[in-house]
Amino acid sequence: MVSGEFGNASLDDATRSRGRREHMVKVRALWLLWILWVATCATGCGVGAQTAANPLPSWNDSPSKKAIVDFVAKVTQAGGPDFVPVSERIATFDNDGTLWCEQPMYVQLAFVLDRVKVLSGKHPEWKQKQPFKAVLDNDIATLAKAGEKGLVDLVMATHAGMTTAEFEQIASDWIKTARHPKFNRPYTDLVYQPMLELLGYLRANGFKTFIVSGGGIEFMRPWSERVYGIPPEQVVGSSIKTQFKVDKDGPVLMRLPAIDLVDDGPGKPVGINSHIGRRPIAAFGNSDGDFQMLQWTTGARGRRFGLIVHHTDAEREYAYDRKSPFGKLDKGLDAASANGWTIASMKDDWKRIFIFQ
Amino acid sequence: MVSGEFGNASLDDATRSRGRREHMVKVRALWLLWILWVATCATGCGVGAQTAANPLPSWNDSPSKKAIVDFVAKVTQAGGPDFVPVSERIATFDNDGTLWCEQPMYVQLAFVLDRVKVLSGKHPEWKQKQPFKAVLDNDIATLAKAGEKGLVDLVMATHAGMTTAEFEQIASDWIKTARHPKFNRPYTDLVYQPMLELLGYLRANGFKTFIVSGGGIEFMRPWSERVYGIPPEQVVGSSIKTQFKVDKDGPVLMRLPAIDLVDDGPGKPVGINSHIGRRPIAAFGNSDGDFQMLQWTTGARGRRFGLIVHHTDAEREYAYDRKSPFGKLDKGLDAASANGWTIASMKDDWKRIFIFQ
Repeated sequence: MVSGEFGNASLDDATRSRGRREHMVKVRALWLLWILWVATCATGCGVGAQTAANPLPSWNDSPSKKAIVDFVAKVTQAGGPDFVPVSERIATFDNDGTLWCEQPMYVQLAFVLDRVKVLSGKHPEWKQKQPFKAVLDNDIATLAKAGEKGLVDLVMATHAGMTTAEFEQIASDWIKTARHPKFNRPYTDLVYQPMLELLGYLRANGFKTFIVSGGGIEFMRPWSERVYGIPPEQVVGSSIKTQFKVDKDGPVLMRLPAIDLVDDGPGKPVGINSHIGRRPIAAFGNSDGDFQMLQWTTGARGRRFGLIVHHTDAEREYAYDRKSPFGKLDKGLDAASANGWTIASMKDDWKRIFIFQ
Repeated sequence: MVSGEFGNASLDDATRSRGRREHMVKVRALWLLWILWVATCATGCGVGAQTAANPLPSWNDSPSKKAIVDFVAKVTQAGGPDFVPVSERIATFDNDGTLWCEQPMYVQLAFVLDRVKVLSGKHPEWKQKQPFKAVLDNDIATLAKAGEKGLVDLVMATHAGMTTAEFEQIASDWIKTARHPKFNRPYTDLVYQPMLELLGYLRANGFKTFIVSGGGIEFMRPWSERVYGIPPEQVVGSSIKTQFKVDKDGPVLMRLPAIDLVDDGPGKPVGINSHIGRRPIAAFGNSDGDFQMLQWTTGARGRRFGLIVHHTDAEREYAYDRKSPFGKLDKGLDAASANGWTIASMKDDWKRIFIFQ
């Protein structure tokens, strides 16, 4: 087709000039298409391109990182035996101790204690009533003895009896101002940089990332998108019941003092099924509260991935596992090997823990 | 740069040949890029292109269509007073009577009745026990008298006592073979073409589309993506409780005979808040079971949109509203105007109802 079209000595000037113009048009079209393609890819489709460079710079080149990268390579390899379509690439992440720091206590417990103090002016009876008295007296030993029943009482007194919009405002305001006692920074600074990179890496490979936390769903949602890139509709957590009503300001949802879902331990697969409706192919946790989520995820057919973040770094963060009151990891350490779960040691596998370190 | 590159009589054969090869390479690259670009767009990025032509071909050019298009134009106009960022463009759709046919009875009720018949061999006592006897006798009058309590008994007997995976298989198998009594087609053929176009139009404009149905969440999820393009994690519905356990085949979720959420009427805003965690900016329903979802959606500040599908076409589908046992629309008809909700008449606003018509 092209033969002789341009390389012909008998072409007159007009023909030659048209040939040049046509060629220029084609070159421009080539560039335009190239730019269009690059732009199109940059807006969301060029999943492959983002993974080309080192995708997990805060991870050491250890077996944990290799296990992650191998898994992602296998499930994304079109035509490969372990290929998983994009729509089924669901990854679930515990929050406390997996995505952010959960010591010296769960962040939401710090919120509860602060709220009890703020609200105590309206509740003079709390000065004599446990477990409120223990909170007001900063008596952690007595508070610890109150157990789960005591915790539920504190949660209901501070999380219910208001609209969802009011609670969102309270939680948002608190998270902006409260500071971690050891690091003296906002709690949302205390997210693990390697895990942020992992979230991004999975999303760049077509995964949809979800939080599945024992923490309160409405405590996390106001900031999950800003901090983790995970929108509210991809946050699963413990919840209390709500009730619709129309008051003088219009329709509201009132938060009731009744448990809806405890999204912890065996409650995690329940929450996953209710909110996501598919079994994840990868799950990330750090404590025995994540045990059943890891079982549910990796106990299905096909290539699956489970990872436990092991807190081994007393210097840069905290070191704890089998005996910790928060984020206890005991059963999971024993069962990891038999289940093929990867254990990531924060001390050995992570170059840095927080962005500010 | 290109001038004289090909149109030169003094080129020797080797040079001329190289020129041709280079040109061929460029032409091939042009084509390759073009194909890549088209393919990339086809896989999800060419949002703009889909909206350029007539986006709702099965809608007549009536005020209902205009209201939809105006709303979408306003909330997507960057810099405009009603602009809504993509992440907040949440649209919720009722299912029965809004996305597919709900007459002569809810599809899931047809499923329940079929299941009672299938399971009756293992339950000889049902021959004497209401409301099961009424089902086995095809005695609809007696069945109707059993009311909500009777319906719950039937649902529990047919929807609980198995794993989530087993139920998914049963529901999937049924939907593939069951046929609508009037149209003699699979129920999944009886989805409203104008609403499918509306779902696509909203998605093309950056909306995330959710089903929020009084129907069972796990009844819809197996086919919602194939039929509506709505993935399981964007389906909200009524649910029963589940329990995690590890049996001989590994981890399972057992379906328990206990209601979790009735996602109807005032339960719809509750389900929306639990699953989505944001207030929708647009909601689409057809019955008074959608009333509170419309209130919750349109009762917030900012540009909002509510639409009621009014079944007015006895010829092409069914005509019913205030007195229908299924999909009753009474309160909604009276309240639509004061709330600024659009009423779409199937007879007047829709060019066609089903794709096969």
